Amino acid sequence: MLFHVRMDVHLPAHLDQQALSQLVAREKAYSQELQHSGKWPHIWRIVGEYANYSIFDVESNDALHQILSALPLFPFMDIKVTPLAVHPSDVNARGEGVT
Amino acid sequence: MLFHVRMDVHLPAHLDQQALSQLVAREKAYSQELQHSGKWPHIWRIVGEYANYSIFDVESNDALHQILSALPLFPFMDIKVTPLAVHPSDVNARGEGVT
Amino acid sequence: MLFHVRMDVHLPAHLDQQALSQLVAREKAYSQELQHSGKWPHIWRIVGEYANYSIFDVESNDALHQILSALPLFPFMDIKVTPLAVHPSDVNARGEGVT
Amino acid sequence: MLFHVRMDVHLPAHLDQQALSQLVAREKAYSQELQHSGKWPHIWRIVGEYANYSIFDVESNDALHQILSALPLFPFMDIKVTPLAVHPSDVNARGEGVT
Amino acid sequence: MLFHVRMDVHLPAHLDQQALSQLVAREKAYSQELQHSGKWPHIWRIVGEYANYSIFDVESNDALHQILSALPLFPFMDIKVTPLAVHPSDVNARGEGVT
Amino acid sequence: MLFHVRMDVHLPAHLDQQALSQLVAREKAYSQELQHSGKWPHIWRIVGEYANYSIFDVESNDALHQILSALPLFPFMDIKVTPLAVHPSDVNARGEGVT
Amino acid sequence: MLFHVRMDVHLPAHLDQQALSQLVAREKAYSQELQHSGKWPHIWRIVGEYANYSIFDVESNDALHQILSALPLFPFMDIKVTPLAVHPSDVNARGEGVT
Amino acid sequence: MLFHVRMDVHLPAHLDQQALSQLVAREKAYSQELQHSGKWPHIWRIVGEYANYSIFDVESNDALHQILSALPLFPFMDIKVTPLAVHPSDVNARGEGVT
Amino acid sequence: MLFHVRMDVHLPAHLDQQALSQLVAREKAYSQELQHSGKWPHIWRIVGEYANYSIFDVESNDALHQILSALPLFPFMDIKVTPLAVHPSDVNARGEGVT
Amino acid sequence: MLFHVRMDVHLPAHLDQQALSQLVAREKAYSQELQHSGKWPHIWRIVGEYANYSIFDVESNDALHQILSALPLFPFMDIKVTPLAVHPSDVNARGEGVT
Repeated sequence: MLFHVRMDVHLPAHLDQQALSQLVAREKAYSQELQHSGKWPHIWRIVGEYANYSIFDVESNDALHQILSALPLFPFMDIKVTPLAVHPSDVNARGEGVT
Repeated sequence: MLFHVRMDVHLPAHLDQQALSQLVAREKAYSQELQHSGKWPHIWRIVGEYANYSIFDVESNDALHQILSALPLFPFMDIKVTPLAVHPSDVNARGEGVT
Repeated sequence: MLFHVRMDVHLPAHLDQQALSQLVAREKAYSQELQHSGKWPHIWRIVGEYANYSIFDVESNDALHQILSALPLFPFMDIKVTPLAVHPSDVNARGEGVT
Repeated sequence: MLFHVRMDVHLPAHLDQQALSQLVAREKAYSQELQHSGKWPHIWRIVGEYANYSIFDVESNDALHQILSALPLFPFMDIKVTPLAVHPSDVNARGEGVT
Repeated sequence: MLFHVRMDVHLPAHLDQQALSQLVAREKAYSQELQHSGKWPHIWRIVGEYANYSIFDVESNDALHQILSALPLFPFMDIKVTPLAVHPSDVNARGEGVT
Repeated sequence: MLFHVRMDVHLPAHLDQQALSQLVAREKAYSQELQHSGKWPHIWRIVGEYANYSIFDVESNDALHQILSALPLFPFMDIKVTPLAVHPSDVNARGEGVT
Repeated sequence: MLFHVRMDVHLPAHLDQQALSQLVAREKAYSQELQHSGKWPHIWRIVGEYANYSIFDVESNDALHQILSALPLFPFMDIKVTPLAVHPSDVNARGEGVT
Repeated sequence: MLFHVRMDVHLPAHLDQQALSQLVAREKAYSQELQHSGKWPHIWRIVGEYANYSIFDVESNDALHQILSALPLFPFMDIKVTPLAVHPSDVNARGEGVT
Repeated sequence: MLFHVRMDVHLPAHLDQQALSQLVAREKAYSQELQHSGKWPHIWRIVGEYANYSIFDVESNDALHQILSALPLFPFMDIKVTPLAVHPSDVNARGEGVT
Repeated sequence: MLFHVRMDVHLPAHLDQQALSQLVAREKAYSQELQHSGKWPHIWRIVGEYANYSIFDVESNDALHQILSALPLFPFMDIKVTPLAVHPSDVNARGEGVT
């Protein structure tokens, strides 16, 4: 089941450089583990912004919230989730989507 | 799997009274069938507006789009879907939600 | 009398971890007491956000404000209240709602 | 129980002058009947706009929706309802409001 | 001359509890003095928010700004003023308002 | 008493050219009469838009609404009124404004 | 070069059913041709809305505008384009993206 | 050449009272010098807000930016500039404005 | 003197194809004449939208409004004008801009 | 390939004057180097705001993000990128743009 997610990162001013580096490194490791598992099939940087558009493929809403709320940067992010359905024109879709 | 849905109805001026009545009657029948099936457990009128907040309980994003796009009033509605997860403070939740 | 409430939590950076844990624990206890009393029949986590949609069932606007303003996290929340009415298509409604 | 209501009127272009006059006359009669009953204690014109701020005093959310949705101009209005509580500084309040 | 005013309070995090209590007490005293004078005939709490809707009855725009900018909480408030006129349907109006 | 007013004109498509010319001519005559009376001391075109910023000098909110609602283009305008006070730095002000 | 595109369809009321069916059929054929060419690698329906999120992979901004402005439904769409870059955490990226 | 300017002041919490008084005094002196020069013909307080609407009369866009960016409060202001043209109905205009 | 202008075109549904073609042709001729004169040095299509960003170089606000309001598509456009100044980092600027 | 970029600078309050001067000097040097290379052909100050509109001419979305995210002021900026295409009326365009 696919979800479209936009994440905007707003780092607080008080974080020191080392804490920040560790945080970003943990975020990257966590993200790549989920990408390898197939649950986070796409992640793109939005040009000019500290933000990304991502696609998640998970079995439920609860599974998605569990993943997102465990992001190391979660306390510093605005996240907006949009559920996706098969598009009726999608040539890769297994069945037929509705209009 | 639960979804929060807001529907705002904007009827076009050109609809005659009879066509409108039939449309609304079909909408009501369709909605009540889904309520009886357990897929549309809650529907509330927003006071003062031709709009509702609803909760849907369906097995997938695709199932929800199929239901919503088949609403007789769908062409005249603005619909906004928000996926819901178990809240960690919910006393009725079966398991434990995440923060 | 039903109300739809959206709560968004914005914790200040200066809270230390222990104070925060106590605050969240008090919030949970307070919420669950109200749920058990029947005044807070539904609470759902919004996927990907530190926010919830809730339904309250109280006898008056004043009762609702008293409940909300006593939330331990109230000083750190944006709250938006929408009054709800019976929907004319609601199969569970006791009487008939208006259009 | 008090509610703050903003109503914005958007008359459709196709209404002829006579139908419009009748509509506005019915709206005025309906409004004044409710004012005399004590359910619509205040109505003010917003300067420069075809809009009003009103205060309603009704026994429930359902009663308010019933009143508003029966307004002759309802199909041509955007209505926004905000529930009100006693303010703790209100010198006219019977009891003490909460913060 | 009537004005509709919305006030939203945003207290800064750095205020200590005692300073805050004194500030709120001065605000209440100031507000009640103006209510007794007839210049602030209505104040309502917006349910779930640290905000109010108020009606002021003053002789001029300058008089209103003088009153509002002297509010003890003024530096911590967002205030939005809307001028009001007599509504043509108002049963309590002395003369006839315009459409 | 001064008011800042923004007017945006949205002419409906169905108006024929002659009706439109007469409407605009009546609007201009009405505006100039009010300018000569001193009640409409300033009117400026907003560059690139069918809109203006104006300053009105009238004795009351009701007087302003009476003037604005009688504009020949009133049914085709969005109007936004902001009450103005003397600025404490204004070198032309008769008295001293407050901060 | 990747672009994120959101398309919202707003069909005019005056289109008859046959013209509409032909338009939608031409849109589908055009979209699928571009999908097969590799220029439109992803298209997803936004649940509950007559809208989609798409990813385009084209050689230039001009190529993208040429494709989008030739969509049969282009005159009835609101389209919002966001340029995408490689995300530094993307496990499928060929090189290393920047932060 | 006339410009409409809205300035909103947001003073930072960390400014001590003396620094603030000096800043505001310098702002007032600077503003009054420009008013006397004819470059800042109007300044009005927006009722209830720490904000003003102003009219500037300068020879160029660059001249206006030079004036505004030298305001002592510039680092603490949100400023919005709108270029103005002669209105065709303006009775004080030297020539004829365009529609 | 430079201005940044965004133009969004919204053609009405009732225009027939021939009238539209003539309108667009007149718009193009008018635009190119101004480009050749040096008053409209840049025009760019916004990808995916019936809209453009343009730069105008004119002697005054009034000159700009005269040009824009004479655009053949002016009645069908939303136009937003932003005055520009020399940027202090601009290597092509003749003098020094201010910060 | 052209991009329209708006940058808004929000400097944090805690930066001391010397660190700020160095930051701004590095920003200027970096910007001018890119301007000389032809990749940043235009930069304009938005009158009255600590903001600029810029045009970038780069070979790809990734190249643009690399440039923007390396701006010394990047952590303190809101940046909004819009891809541009040739406008069909552009007299300087090499080929013919599409509508």
